[in-house]
Amino acid sequence: MTTDRIWTAALAVIGDEILSGRTQDKNVSQIALWLNLQGIRLREVRIVPDVEQEIVDCVNALRGRYDYLFTTGGIGPTHDDITVDAIAKALGVDVVIHPEASAMLHAYYESRGGLTEARLRMARVPDGAELIPNRMSGAPGIRHGNIFIMAGVPHITAGMLDALTGTPAMMKIGCQIGSYPFFREGKVGSNFVIRSVDQAQLDQCAAALVAELAKLGRESVVGGI
Amino acid sequence: MTTDRIWTAALAVIGDEILSGRTQDKNVSQIALWLNLQGIRLREVRIVPDVEQEIVDCVNALRGRYDYLFTTGGIGPTHDDITVDAIAKALGVDVVIHPEASAMLHAYYESRGGLTEARLRMARVPDGAELIPNRMSGAPGIRHGNIFIMAGVPHITAGMLDALTGTPAMMKIGCQIGSYPFFREGKVGSNFVIRSVDQAQLDQCAAALVAELAKLGRESVVGGI
Repeated sequence: MTTDRIWTAALAVIGDEILSGRTQDKNVSQIALWLNLQGIRLREVRIVPDVEQEIVDCVNALRGRYDYLFTTGGIGPTHDDITVDAIAKALGVDVVIHPEASAMLHAYYESRGGLTEARLRMARVPDGAELIPNRMSGAPGIRHGNIFIMAGVPHITAGMLDALTGTPAMMKIGCQIGSYPFFREGKVGSNFVIRSVDQAQLDQCAAALVAELAKLGRESVVGGI
Repeated sequence: MTTDRIWTAALAVIGDEILSGRTQDKNVSQIALWLNLQGIRLREVRIVPDVEQEIVDCVNALRGRYDYLFTTGGIGPTHDDITVDAIAKALGVDVVIHPEASAMLHAYYESRGGLTEARLRMARVPDGAELIPNRMSGAPGIRHGNIFIMAGVPHITAGMLDALTGTPAMMKIGCQIGSYPFFREGKVGSNFVIRSVDQAQLDQCAAALVAELAKLGRESVVGGI
């Protein structure tokens, strides 16, 4: 449950291996279910090939239309991993080496054969991006504004989603509500806990909840932490 | 292998149950693999909700851009099965009851509780459509021009794909080539069998094949059946 506004997301699945049928996609359902838990509704998915202009067009069609755009795939070390380049082009920014990503990759590959030029490709980000931690392997995910650039391999994606859960990046455009029913001293009731990093949205959400409860003839006591 | 031209397809997966993550899609890979066998490349997939205007926009964006457009989902008996209405709207044609589909459904449901009004919905097609046989359950798929409207349930979709294999609908805009190598009287060679319902495309494909073989220094003898 959120305030009146329904927060929406789109997902761009990038990769010839999905379109050829060689690989069965798992990220659509995985990301859809995770988004539900964040109070965000997945409204559209597009699966596009490893072709720069197709990715650019897809990203530009989706990033303005929905609150969030997730992408999966195309951020590995090989020549057909062109997601970062395509998104930078869509945003009109340069591709830069992210120093923190570079350091992570150096550390990760130190005991795994060293950081080759191909592997260093995974430190490239659209200028202005932040990293999304990846506890499964060396290469991080990338956030740029409302675009979340994730791995294509499902268990790596899962780790990145886990790293995003409850972060300001996900919470600042929504409220999370927990409901804790009780039966006490002959009274039936429920505690609602509303979490947000935005005070105005928190107040708006609390007011909306109290109003809905009043319609149902329920009393509310509002407190803060 | 086909002639120079690469035949392309898009797939529109229609259904809230996929976008919510409740149901794991199987049709993308199933249809992709089947298309490969027909010599057609799946180039784009969009997954859209059960919202008429979104389906209309999706169909209109894809049907002109690719040689084929497949859709899955939304052709069942319930109120949220609106694919036929949306595609008719996209095409600017009426929705009509297809007499053959109606007869099929009557026959199928005769021993299964009768043909209710809801079930008769499955005989509705965009005006001008042909049916795609469904040997799994009563309700047929639908073809209108280059749009192939398929079931959402994977095993029913599979039956419909099987029914389409090798039909003029799939072959008339492409050639199928089989290669049969032989080793005979000390000579190594191969018979190629090209199939098409279009004589001009057949001739063009044969000429292209002979030209490619000539580049490799191979002799060809062309015959016809």
